[in-house]
Amino acid sequence: MINYPNGKRQQKQKFIPANLGMDFEVDINLSNSYYLEKNVAIIHKKPTPIQIVQVNYPSRNKAKITEAYFKTPSTTDYNGVYKGKYLDFDAKVTSSKTSFPYSNFHNHQIKHLINIEKHGGLGFFLIKWKVYDEIYLIKINDLMNYINSNTRKSIPYEDFKKISFPIKKGYLPRINYLETIDIAYNLK
Amino acid sequence: MINYPNGKRQQKQKFIPANLGMDFEVDINLSNSYYLEKNVAIIHKKPTPIQIVQVNYPSRNKAKITEAYFKTPSTTDYNGVYKGKYLDFDAKVTSSKTSFPYSNFHNHQIKHLINIEKHGGLGFFLIKWKVYDEIYLIKINDLMNYINSNTRKSIPYEDFKKISFPIKKGYLPRINYLETIDIAYNLK
Repeated sequence: MINYPNGKRQQKQKFIPANLGMDFEVDINLSNSYYLEKNVAIIHKKPTPIQIVQVNYPSRNKAKITEAYFKTPSTTDYNGVYKGKYLDFDAKVTSSKTSFPYSNFHNHQIKHLINIEKHGGLGFFLIKWKVYDEIYLIKINDLMNYINSNTRKSIPYEDFKKISFPIKKGYLPRINYLETIDIAYNLK
Repeated sequence: MINYPNGKRQQKQKFIPANLGMDFEVDINLSNSYYLEKNVAIIHKKPTPIQIVQVNYPSRNKAKITEAYFKTPSTTDYNGVYKGKYLDFDAKVTSSKTSFPYSNFHNHQIKHLINIEKHGGLGFFLIKWKVYDEIYLIKINDLMNYINSNTRKSIPYEDFKKISFPIKKGYLPRINYLETIDIAYNLK
């Protein structure tokens, strides 16, 4: 488990996008570390992009950034390689009981993931329904088919379950989404 | 061309690793933008990882990072997808006329790229010989074969040319390394 001494955890929560729960991110990162260690796949979270404005160079010390701002990522948070395939995805959390709003999917991420599939990669979202403590994998193409086939602004929970794949939770890895990838993309 | 008003370019150069010329990085990024725009491949530079220590939240303004430090990246600078293949690489510049020192290849990057190839991805370095204004692509496996077959601490220029692939320079893209990938990995 990860410790956050001196209340650092609370501080850290402010740095992450409002729609992504910190616990979910930690669980995905731990799962990726497990996959890496067990030689299953190489998947990393990309660093948060930062716009650096001012850096000081105190003598004998390492460079200290004294003014910087968060930038909006131009792609998704995670990518890597699994069974020779390029994987690319983002993670989202909803607190809703009833439906997942389309607005949670950012336009630049949708465009990026559609493009990934066109180039032979696997593009998808990992979605956590906090209230049910359930995690699903939804392929970008399945998501787009749903969005394009109706005039809604969100996906009702029951519909969501039909167009996505449930992910098993466990101890190691916490979130076994590669097992779900095998099923969703027929990689067995 | 990219403008750096108010001497920002000089300031920016301090942020990048000493062994990677800023011009080379700019040229690679412009080539990747070209590939993306022309729908050839999706390859991005990962953001520089930053350790954030202190953030202020001035009212009505966006979060301002007031204390942060550069972290050593755990992988390489670039990855993406091309012709269904996972690509992963780093870029290095040498000012030497005679040989490229092994010490320019960081251990964690070597390990990472070897691992990438084991998982079916393409792992390589783009190397610029500044004095000759020449750029080469060297596959991680070819590099390791060379390193493991002798007791030297660097690769002489003449040997280097034998185990790597020259990259054409041009206007668009600046550095046409995907054309070289086709040859090096037989992807035509």
